[in-house]
Amino acid sequence: MLGSTHGTLTSDLRARVVACGEQPRQAVHDTASITATDGAMDVSGRPLYAPVPDLDRFFRPSSVAVVGASDSEGRPNTGITRQLVDWAERVGARLYPVHPTREHVFGLRCSPSVADLPEEVDLAVLLVGDPLPVIGELAEAKVKFAVAFASGYAETGDAGAVAQTRLAAAVERAGLRLLGPNTNLNAFERFRDDLTGPAIALITQSGHQGRPVFTLQELGVRLSHWAPTGNEADLETSDFISYFAERPEVGAIACYVEGLKDGRSFLLAADRAARRGVPVVAVKVGRTETGARTAASHTGKLTGADQVVDAAMRQFGVIRVDGLDELQDTAALLARARRPAADGVVVYSISGGTGAHFSDLACAAGLRLPRLSETKQAELHTWIPEYLNVANPVDNGGHPVGDWRGRKIIDAILADPSVGVLICPITGPFPPMSDRLAQDLVDAAEATDKLVCVVWGSPVGTETAYRETLLGSSRVATFRTFGNCITAVRAFLDHHRFTTGYRSPFDEAPRTPSPSFRKAQALMRPGKQLSEHAAKQLLRAYGIRVPREQLVTSAAAAVRAAGLVGYPVVMKASGTQLAHKTELGLVKVGLTSASQVRDAYRDLTDIARYEGLDLDGILVCQMVERGVEMVVGVTQDALFGPTVTVGLGGVLVEVLQDVAVRVPPFGEDQARAMLGELRGRALLEGIRGGPPVDVDALVEVVLRVQRMALELGDELSELDINPLMVLPRGQGAVALDALAVCR
Amino acid sequence: MLGSTHGTLTSDLRARVVACGEQPRQAVHDTASITATDGAMDVSGRPLYAPVPDLDRFFRPSSVAVVGASDSEGRPNTGITRQLVDWAERVGARLYPVHPTREHVFGLRCSPSVADLPEEVDLAVLLVGDPLPVIGELAEAKVKFAVAFASGYAETGDAGAVAQTRLAAAVERAGLRLLGPNTNLNAFERFRDDLTGPAIALITQSGHQGRPVFTLQELGVRLSHWAPTGNEADLETSDFISYFAERPEVGAIACYVEGLKDGRSFLLAADRAARRGVPVVAVKVGRTETGARTAASHTGKLTGADQVVDAAMRQFGVIRVDGLDELQDTAALLARARRPAADGVVVYSISGGTGAHFSDLACAAGLRLPRLSETKQAELHTWIPEYLNVANPVDNGGHPVGDWRGRKIIDAILADPSVGVLICPITGPFPPMSDRLAQDLVDAAEATDKLVCVVWGSPVGTETAYRETLLGSSRVATFRTFGNCITAVRAFLDHHRFTTGYRSPFDEAPRTPSPSFRKAQALMRPGKQLSEHAAKQLLRAYGIRVPREQLVTSAAAAVRAAGLVGYPVVMKASGTQLAHKTELGLVKVGLTSASQVRDAYRDLTDIARYEGLDLDGILVCQMVERGVEMVVGVTQDALFGPTVTVGLGGVLVEVLQDVAVRVPPFGEDQARAMLGELRGRALLEGIRGGPPVDVDALVEVVLRVQRMALELGDELSELDINPLMVLPRGQGAVALDALAVCR
Repeated sequence: MLGSTHGTLTSDLRARVVACGEQPRQAVHDTASITATDGAMDVSGRPLYAPVPDLDRFFRPSSVAVVGASDSEGRPNTGITRQLVDWAERVGARLYPVHPTREHVFGLRCSPSVADLPEEVDLAVLLVGDPLPVIGELAEAKVKFAVAFASGYAETGDAGAVAQTRLAAAVERAGLRLLGPNTNLNAFERFRDDLTGPAIALITQSGHQGRPVFTLQELGVRLSHWAPTGNEADLETSDFISYFAERPEVGAIACYVEGLKDGRSFLLAADRAARRGVPVVAVKVGRTETGARTAASHTGKLTGADQVVDAAMRQFGVIRVDGLDELQDTAALLARARRPAADGVVVYSISGGTGAHFSDLACAAGLRLPRLSETKQAELHTWIPEYLNVANPVDNGGHPVGDWRGRKIIDAILADPSVGVLICPITGPFPPMSDRLAQDLVDAAEATDKLVCVVWGSPVGTETAYRETLLGSSRVATFRTFGNCITAVRAFLDHHRFTTGYRSPFDEAPRTPSPSFRKAQALMRPGKQLSEHAAKQLLRAYGIRVPREQLVTSAAAAVRAAGLVGYPVVMKASGTQLAHKTELGLVKVGLTSASQVRDAYRDLTDIARYEGLDLDGILVCQMVERGVEMVVGVTQDALFGPTVTVGLGGVLVEVLQDVAVRVPPFGEDQARAMLGELRGRALLEGIRGGPPVDVDALVEVVLRVQRMALELGDELSELDINPLMVLPRGQGAVALDALAVCR
Repeated sequence: MLGSTHGTLTSDLRARVVACGEQPRQAVHDTASITATDGAMDVSGRPLYAPVPDLDRFFRPSSVAVVGASDSEGRPNTGITRQLVDWAERVGARLYPVHPTREHVFGLRCSPSVADLPEEVDLAVLLVGDPLPVIGELAEAKVKFAVAFASGYAETGDAGAVAQTRLAAAVERAGLRLLGPNTNLNAFERFRDDLTGPAIALITQSGHQGRPVFTLQELGVRLSHWAPTGNEADLETSDFISYFAERPEVGAIACYVEGLKDGRSFLLAADRAARRGVPVVAVKVGRTETGARTAASHTGKLTGADQVVDAAMRQFGVIRVDGLDELQDTAALLARARRPAADGVVVYSISGGTGAHFSDLACAAGLRLPRLSETKQAELHTWIPEYLNVANPVDNGGHPVGDWRGRKIIDAILADPSVGVLICPITGPFPPMSDRLAQDLVDAAEATDKLVCVVWGSPVGTETAYRETLLGSSRVATFRTFGNCITAVRAFLDHHRFTTGYRSPFDEAPRTPSPSFRKAQALMRPGKQLSEHAAKQLLRAYGIRVPREQLVTSAAAAVRAAGLVGYPVVMKASGTQLAHKTELGLVKVGLTSASQVRDAYRDLTDIARYEGLDLDGILVCQMVERGVEMVVGVTQDALFGPTVTVGLGGVLVEVLQDVAVRVPPFGEDQARAMLGELRGRALLEGIRGGPPVDVDALVEVVLRVQRMALELGDELSELDINPLMVLPRGQGAVALDALAVCR
């Protein structure tokens, strides 16, 4: 790994920021210090620290070798070579074509091989069909970075995947960093250098899909980098997120992701960006991918892989959007807007209808539109006729924007301390009004730190007020649709809310096993499903309450056990291969006498015999009735490893699929947030006048399950506590049934 | 009511279509005949027929009077008068200024009053502050239509609402039709007359909000009418929908609605459009309006008014969208695209990433992307390299679009019988490829009846391929975002699916009371909540099953009743003011013996006495256990009258708010569709291996409740069957508890 950055980065960054003379983009918190170092692992064996690759020389190489350069008409490499020659000329880099037989390419002297290059180049662009043989030569020539264009790797199937693995291994041995294969020259496109202010850095796994964000430069939005990661044999999306998060000129990172190479790397990169206050906005393909899970436990079936990605992104503040247009608009806003002074949004328009419509959508999306104070309203009525509503939305009726009053109104709104964002939707261009309104908004935005947004609703988009006035301003955020404006403003406010209180879960993640671990280990049976009784022992090892119960193998013992446990009791068959006990009649509830217990013992063993099931005995359990049934579980995600789910329990979990998921490590705040995501969360507040349930105990179970998931790691394929009976407040929570599968 | 159209309209329309030489827009079904006539009412007293106002002379008047005309510099009326003078000149209409003192306005001779007009004008534009006094004069002068600009009516509060009612009454007496007040000249703007093909007709309650759709003309989309309805004292949105639905040049109706004047009028207008196959696309403000309901029943609380509007629109095929951009894109597509031959969508792109991303979003939105046949794939591989995926999405890798192969590929896809829609997302303009691709798509679209869509993803939008090639075509539907393309295509396919099978519920709506009605009427107690027992009698009157039960007033009678009903029994307090019986301990379940019944009787009466509740007795009921608890109810909506809801029952109804709602009249198909909308619908299919429940019986209860709601009309303020126990298939459904409130 080349030039990674260690230790406390805060002061580091500040020093660099000052050195560059750039405004630091965000307040950087003290909590942003990363205390883990390279090699630190959590108890599950996953890294707690990801080094930041130093990609300065990759993006701004002084010297570049082009292996497989060509200037013969009609060859694909010719176009690429020409593009590189032009680029080198533009940025003043030294370009060295490499070709075994040619003397010159585009007038530049060729080296016959990498070994013959006249200097240690920063970057080699590999246009050859098979880059593998070149990698060793690059290492010997001390080349730092390579870009491989060749396709035919993992994207084509198994054979390609093998070739890619071989290429990745060679790269690792060589100690250089590779972009690709199956990538292109997007990183070396023509970036506008006349634009100032914080920039978007772009990462895409498909060049074509990055084009709209790149093209934003034509609308005046600065772009600093573009990393087209292709197949990610070596350098991956996460590397670029980490690198960009440390660059002072980067205001926001925009990503187009089709698949993540490694879940933990992604989380660590997102964590770094969150600590730095750098927003990451991502399109992630896969909304309709059905998870490849074959597990039998319920939570496994319910938590599709996309739901896990979604949760992971939310946990680390990554803003997920679906459209490339939303990616553009959200990233552009987040890159350029300053930290909001307040989260109140005022909608200002020249039409009551527009104000009503926009406000309706904004409120539905969760934006807060504070009612302006009576004093402020009185002030606005200095310029706006009395009969118009100025409480928020502010309707000026049109006319005041045509003269000096327009600017007064905008300034008065922006001066209100409850206001952090002013949004002005202009649905129709009417030059006598809209041109002046646009100019007033641009001027007012220059004079304030608050966010000023305009929606230019005309579908034409060639109007001067739009093209020149609004897009000419780097202080006004201009949108074309109500929807994208609302999405972006919501993301902007959420981002600042998130980073302000951000505490990295990696700082708190357990690194060594708890005392519970040894007890738990002794219960694991590799390759087996544990019996209910054993699974409950596992829970007990982690301090999760289970009912009083005894495993018995005779009717007489059952009666004795019932006496100890206390009537009424529940009796259930217990064995290593049992699921769906209720459907098979293997559960008897509400037994109130010795004779009922004896009958139940006989029935249960009869059924098991009839069904040909191996039992390790019959469980005689305390009966727990009054509470809310929840489910808490662990499933293994192909990308992120163990994940923790919580949801409504009992039969409802199957029908309503009302579950929330988190990727460890996460803190208590996230465990509580999970409950808030449940549609049925009101169940926890007590129903029909019943008492609220013991949410603290539920949260504690979720955290203990997380601890178990981390410590047992991949060994615990699945855990499903269903139901977890959550009792009234102060009375705890009891795991009534549990299913555990060992790997 | 002027010139309404009656009787069978199908042949009528066909005749007019042929006469105009226009293509009929859609196949019109035989079921489109409207059989009801003016004055026909359903059993609730709501109309079954809405006449279509003849607005030809309103939109294309030969002569117009301008009351309050002005040409004095600086007066607001001067601008409006000038606009009208220009308009009259353009369209060749005769314009008559009316002013008490002036001789001329803009060189046109003034009439001193309406009475002095030289002819019976088609339309009077009223620019006066108070139009009320003019209305009588207009009637005497036989003026057919008026437009009132004055504001200060219902939009300003109660006093304004009174003035508006007075104005509306005067208009009705006068026998003319009025647009406004609080409206403008949008109907008489400059419409492009060089555009051909089916047009959008636009209806807006706010002029500013209609501007983006109007502006679509600049992008080549034809607009035929704009009705700015303002306060709708007389003419309302529904009148214009009905009128536009009958115009052969109208391909789609786009609406911006803030509030509906009358629910039934809207449904009848939407029904007319559905019969005609004319799509109606609407933005309806009010997503966040909290309903004004004060009722205590559960369904009332759960069914917000917006949910009712939403359901009503869906029932009648109105496509609701949220953004003005979606309104534009969806209306433009629906106006111009021909009926789809198939519902299969193929995504075709020059980038695998783009194809993957678009397809992901399209599938998530419910579009069907059929896998192309092996034969078709082989054919596509004639022009597309073998290693690229052409199953759908079709990825051509870029190069083939640069030459003759591009068109071949498009034609081959369009020739596939499984394909109804081809969508080509182009995320980045790269003229050597994208210009030719755009042209090929335009040419191919000319040669097919199938729908060809392009998403031009560049945020710039000034590129020639976009501005000239794509927007220059009336056959290619061009979008700027993936999202809007998917929304519009989905609406297009849904619309045709809906209208193809459309059967108007108004044709089947009951017009006379059923025999149940008399029985039910006898049970109603105006202003009162019925006792559970009485509410169940109401259900029985409509053939809805209730448990065997007896109302008793002594312990001895209770024991006798239990014997007749059959053990185990449930006992409940019954009275007219009881709600939340369970919380008060007024329900005893699972009583298995006479002594338990006697004890329960004593307990229940004790509690009632302690709580000070008046009982009409104690209900001794059959106990029904095995089934799924649902809720079925009736609530009164301020706009639509009685509505019917169905949802998950028991305590869940409060927590999960999982209910579906419909506005009567609706048929069995809609009752079944309601169940399909429930998140918990899987409960009905049987849980954990249990049998599926009797869905037919549930549907039957919903329809019987609808019948009750229609027959009792406004007299039944609320009905709440909770739970309705739906038993296993073939065993019916039983209303275990019911709450009914009379108005």
